[in-house]
Amino acid sequence: MNAFDPKPLGERAQAMLDALASISADAERLTRLYLTPEHKRAADLVAEWMRRAGMSVRMDAVAGVHGLLSNGTNSPRRLLVGSHIDTVIDGGRYDGTLGVVAAVLAAEEIRAREIALPFGLEVIAFGDEEGVRFPKTLIGSSTVAGSINPSILDMTDSAGKTVRNALLRFGCDPAALESEAYRRENIVGYLEFHIEQGPLLESWNEPLGVVTAIAAQSRHRVRIAGEAGHAGTVPMSLRHDALAGAAEFMVMAEELAYRGERNSVVITVGELSLKPGAVNVIPGEVLLSLDVRAASDKARASAVEMILWRSRQIGSRRGLVIGVETVHEKPVAVCAPKLRAAISRGVASVTGQKPRDLMSGAGHDGLAMAHLTDIGMAFVRCRAGISHNPLEHVTLSDLGFAVEALVRTIVEVAKEERA
Amino acid sequence: MNAFDPKPLGERAQAMLDALASISADAERLTRLYLTPEHKRAADLVAEWMRRAGMSVRMDAVAGVHGLLSNGTNSPRRLLVGSHIDTVIDGGRYDGTLGVVAAVLAAEEIRAREIALPFGLEVIAFGDEEGVRFPKTLIGSSTVAGSINPSILDMTDSAGKTVRNALLRFGCDPAALESEAYRRENIVGYLEFHIEQGPLLESWNEPLGVVTAIAAQSRHRVRIAGEAGHAGTVPMSLRHDALAGAAEFMVMAEELAYRGERNSVVITVGELSLKPGAVNVIPGEVLLSLDVRAASDKARASAVEMILWRSRQIGSRRGLVIGVETVHEKPVAVCAPKLRAAISRGVASVTGQKPRDLMSGAGHDGLAMAHLTDIGMAFVRCRAGISHNPLEHVTLSDLGFAVEALVRTIVEVAKEERA
Repeated sequence: MNAFDPKPLGERAQAMLDALASISADAERLTRLYLTPEHKRAADLVAEWMRRAGMSVRMDAVAGVHGLLSNGTNSPRRLLVGSHIDTVIDGGRYDGTLGVVAAVLAAEEIRAREIALPFGLEVIAFGDEEGVRFPKTLIGSSTVAGSINPSILDMTDSAGKTVRNALLRFGCDPAALESEAYRRENIVGYLEFHIEQGPLLESWNEPLGVVTAIAAQSRHRVRIAGEAGHAGTVPMSLRHDALAGAAEFMVMAEELAYRGERNSVVITVGELSLKPGAVNVIPGEVLLSLDVRAASDKARASAVEMILWRSRQIGSRRGLVIGVETVHEKPVAVCAPKLRAAISRGVASVTGQKPRDLMSGAGHDGLAMAHLTDIGMAFVRCRAGISHNPLEHVTLSDLGFAVEALVRTIVEVAKEERA
Repeated sequence: MNAFDPKPLGERAQAMLDALASISADAERLTRLYLTPEHKRAADLVAEWMRRAGMSVRMDAVAGVHGLLSNGTNSPRRLLVGSHIDTVIDGGRYDGTLGVVAAVLAAEEIRAREIALPFGLEVIAFGDEEGVRFPKTLIGSSTVAGSINPSILDMTDSAGKTVRNALLRFGCDPAALESEAYRRENIVGYLEFHIEQGPLLESWNEPLGVVTAIAAQSRHRVRIAGEAGHAGTVPMSLRHDALAGAAEFMVMAEELAYRGERNSVVITVGELSLKPGAVNVIPGEVLLSLDVRAASDKARASAVEMILWRSRQIGSRRGLVIGVETVHEKPVAVCAPKLRAAISRGVASVTGQKPRDLMSGAGHDGLAMAHLTDIGMAFVRCRAGISHNPLEHVTLSDLGFAVEALVRTIVEVAKEERA
């Protein structure tokens, strides 16, 4: 096997990522929200790159930029490759943009190397994945996938501006929203390369990994009601301490997550508040959030069921009322085995070793695209797993590996398509 | 043994308690803070009762009301009996006032029954125990005990008014503060009857209990530093979840308190806050308060030492930094065995059975008085252990038991004094 030198492609990718990162609402930090002037400039830049790479470019009804590298035939078959170009507030320069830049470079390389494809290669730069400006995530990919609800056009940002008006100002036609839905039979699949936003690849010392699924997820609000009392005068055996009950609940939930490790179960309590909240008063009430994710709907559901069962035991033993309310539930989006295999072969041909599998605990455009077509995702190692933060970092050489692996993955998908 | 009927004395006590409860800053709730017009009216009412009971009355430099029932001799020996007449905001009608009313009634009964005492009986209604208005508790008893620091005169309330000015307006002489200290050799001891403010007597089905000590107490600020991270992308085994560590810490502390039950160890986490505090973010930092009380300084210190030791283990196993800072430490105030025995005999002669011992987890005027003299305290059962709340309640018959037990306790102390 020829040793692949990732540096040249890595440098080209980094230059493009830096160019995008310079387009921000703020001089001090990277903030590029959906349908803002910054978004417009970034979309124009991506469109320019696409044109130079030989693609025909169009903007869809929700400001997604589409570049089509035709294969010179009349076939409507297309392989979609993309990610998003919006950021969180004070975000990093790789989240989303890495996938867009890698896709543009892959198209450029495929053309330059005169690789013939049995389908059109369509690169997409979605405008909204993060959902920071409006109370909705994945607007771009949901539109293409045909799963968008037109009522989102009436949603407003914090300044009271609607999605509809923002789209009109951006130069889009919101009335065309529903006609943007792609036809399932024309689509080969959707590929997305994205930074991991987690620490696994770094801990494994591997540049790239194959995503098995975007996790099943549920969020719950837990209320633990006990009895407030004086910290000095109520002996331990007569207490109904809501926070002590919450502590046992959290230890139990963490233990369950460890036990479900094979199914990538992760359980997080991220918010906790208590009443009355004084140093010398036994807490009478605790509210906490519970976030449960797993590699399968079944693993998630059984973790939640076990939490409910155990919390009833904790409650009755301690004389507490523990209520668990489900506020949000999202089924797993499984990556297609054929695309997983194609990515695995693509990565292995670049790095010289079979990549490992990992689950995506976070949502991505692939989650929406799974409603339309097969999805395949690769994760790229990022420093310390840090994301949504200016410290987000991917090495030049990992960037090069990612772009080349994407090129070869597309070639692998082409082989499948022909077979 | 004659069956004692507690009702008549209970009714007299209740009428006096109701009269005091009608003196409030608010029509809707009972709030009587130190050195307010309400306090003045309450002090005047108590002084009036004392005079009617045949006592000579004076007000001290910090607005404490003292009534002396002389025994007709020139001896300076005195037994002090009292409690406080200030309340918390929206407080109950028994906390403190019960002890003052019982002491006035006991003096009245001793005179009416022509019981000769070998000492003067001095009833005291302290003006500040709760420390709600100024940032200091136990001003009244600390002054009499000679442990007050004159710098408290410059403390201000939330309106910026100093203790000094408030005292002057009240008609007191703040310059006389230090001269109020009683001389140790003249004092037989200090007795205080107080509501339990806890649930033990009710759970034992007993009206009165003998306090063994006012608990040793310490307060600590605990900071747990971990690493924030994405709730979906960081697997359990790579987390440094500050809240999960806090949960284990709290379960451990509770377990230690149970183990120390013989030494009346109680441990409470009453405050907890975390950062960043979002449903999908692993907490990176937790701050919590830790309140540790025990029947002895040794039991308290060893509980704290064990907490420190175990928290180091939790920290190193989880990759967390757990810092425990001591912000407040108060040694135990042990009740004098002779006074405990006198109370026990006094109570037993009224109820027909030996009362049980219990610790006071909360601070009381006795805590300050222990610097001056032997202290003896009895607790009176209160409904559901509720205090500092309008629902605070003591039954008529328990009030009657308390007053009569105090009379007989004083008689028991007199026997000791003569012996």
